[in-house]
Amino acid sequence: MPSKNVVQPVADPEHIALDDVRPLIAPHLEAAIAALDENAPLLATMVRYHLGWVDASGRRATIASGKLVRPAVAMLTCQAAGGDPVTAAPLGAAIELLHNFTLVHDDIQDRSLLRRHRATVWATWGEAQAINAGDALFATAHLPLYSLSAHGVAPELVLLLADAFARMTIAIVQGQVLDLGFEGRDGIEVAAYVQMIGGKTAAIVQYAAWAGALLGGADPATAARFGEFGLSLGLGFQIRDDALGVWGSEAATGKAPADDIRRRKRSLPLLLLRERATKADAAIVMLLDTKPTLDDSDVTAVLRLLDRYGVRVDVEACLSKFHDQSRAALMSAAQISCNPARDRLGKMLEQLAVREG
Amino acid sequence: MPSKNVVQPVADPEHIALDDVRPLIAPHLEAAIAALDENAPLLATMVRYHLGWVDASGRRATIASGKLVRPAVAMLTCQAAGGDPVTAAPLGAAIELLHNFTLVHDDIQDRSLLRRHRATVWATWGEAQAINAGDALFATAHLPLYSLSAHGVAPELVLLLADAFARMTIAIVQGQVLDLGFEGRDGIEVAAYVQMIGGKTAAIVQYAAWAGALLGGADPATAARFGEFGLSLGLGFQIRDDALGVWGSEAATGKAPADDIRRRKRSLPLLLLRERATKADAAIVMLLDTKPTLDDSDVTAVLRLLDRYGVRVDVEACLSKFHDQSRAALMSAAQISCNPARDRLGKMLEQLAVREG
Repeated sequence: MPSKNVVQPVADPEHIALDDVRPLIAPHLEAAIAALDENAPLLATMVRYHLGWVDASGRRATIASGKLVRPAVAMLTCQAAGGDPVTAAPLGAAIELLHNFTLVHDDIQDRSLLRRHRATVWATWGEAQAINAGDALFATAHLPLYSLSAHGVAPELVLLLADAFARMTIAIVQGQVLDLGFEGRDGIEVAAYVQMIGGKTAAIVQYAAWAGALLGGADPATAARFGEFGLSLGLGFQIRDDALGVWGSEAATGKAPADDIRRRKRSLPLLLLRERATKADAAIVMLLDTKPTLDDSDVTAVLRLLDRYGVRVDVEACLSKFHDQSRAALMSAAQISCNPARDRLGKMLEQLAVREG
Repeated sequence: MPSKNVVQPVADPEHIALDDVRPLIAPHLEAAIAALDENAPLLATMVRYHLGWVDASGRRATIASGKLVRPAVAMLTCQAAGGDPVTAAPLGAAIELLHNFTLVHDDIQDRSLLRRHRATVWATWGEAQAINAGDALFATAHLPLYSLSAHGVAPELVLLLADAFARMTIAIVQGQVLDLGFEGRDGIEVAAYVQMIGGKTAAIVQYAAWAGALLGGADPATAARFGEFGLSLGLGFQIRDDALGVWGSEAATGKAPADDIRRRKRSLPLLLLRERATKADAAIVMLLDTKPTLDDSDVTAVLRLLDRYGVRVDVEACLSKFHDQSRAALMSAAQISCNPARDRLGKMLEQLAVREG
């Protein structure tokens, strides 16, 4: 009978997989959130609830939480650059907390009622307290980042990563400002859209890849190539999300079919349709803006137009472009032959490009 | 005729006054905000508008902005600890930006329509974009803080200040969570109230005094004493604010007389009244919670009760207590005789204790 005390290795450092990320990141996430425990119990409860650790009354619960794609990118680029991926675990925790700060505020701004199949923080505790929960996540994100220096990273490098962390956050907020500005607007160009998702979605993936590589010992030029890999990966990720929002299956996405049509989102497929619809069809597109709610036949009409104007082909071409750019940047960044982390990153890239949910 | 090119010294480093703080802080504030200029012009406009630099259309305007009390504390404690106050200017800018982040979000949470006699950011651009403006200010606050290392401060010390900056922000958010939780509640104890303002108002002043002293070369124990000075100063500042919210003159405060009574705020005078009102008077106090709006005669009745129960005397005793604690901590922290910065801090303490607006 094997002893209960045999320590199981949580991850083979040579073959770190997405599932291996969680146990490596978790202690850093938990230590950071523990800083919220004093004085105002509601604050820590809101944050742990959002992260999927507790239910709304603060009781421990096993609830599906995020996929940790961003920390995985940081740890794998660290390894691909020649470092020990565990070095990047605090960085991964910081990135994951920052990402969750943006989700909490985004849900307030979009009036989203559900996130990961549960009521959002603002829907549960009101908007004012949800603003606090997001602010606390943002503040807390810095703790694991700064802790890198206690884990042997040179303070100069920690400060470089911290400065870029603030600038990346500014890029996310800029993207969010642009996204809200798109609502109800017409004539949004694809370039403007790509700029918006470049901030809102891709900046954090770019940062994760760049910062992870620097922690792994990459020189600045190589780290910048890893950053380009992350940027294209993030852009492709968002375009895939856009495609799923229109053509994804309800079972896989957990959202209503063609949810983005119903919600009148300015996503890439719908921008392209607006750009292309000739006068005769423009009337149907107008429905999107004027009808109080869109019924199934409206949605079907829009889907038919998307078909007629060949939008899906172009969305997929756009996805392919970012996918190829991402792959090329990865290959140029990680030139060491038989680098297992590079192969894992390549595999992640392929998986994200064809994901269904 | 004097040459136009004669450079005027902006401040005598030996006698830095509150008015001297603005020109020393301004370049750091402006450099940080410039990081918002790309991509989403609305973001930088909202932030500059909030700071009082531009009008709502983004045109430069001379508008009264904040008093910069917090940066002044940081620069003066730096000097009182034996340093050049200019060293602490980037720190002061970081603190001022962080303070303004909390104001932007606070205005959303409190539904405040006016700030410094102008429409608030959320009242002008809506809540969703105002959340972005606050988030951007928070992110931007880190840039001058990290820039300390480019100004010759050891990276280890910058990281120590940055870590405490994040923890101080958590304390502010905790205070805000408690404050929102007080709304509409009865039986809030004075100790719980002091804990709340300790986070919401005083934590940032404590941080400013502590961090400024460290930059000035103070040892950890002395810096902690400066921090205690800041904490008591901040607590006294809030109690003075509470007194002005009930008994202040409209001309000096720019608010309606007895505004806190009308707004049903859980401030110290009203907590004390709720605690003391006997059964007969409790009915009038109940009015505060149940009447849809309070008219002048209601306000007069509450003012009369505050008088009857001797609340003002006790509020002033509480203010005196924090004032004395602050002065004692300052004297123990800055023991160098004839230290002009210590005397300036003492003067600031006296001015804040008797301010009318």
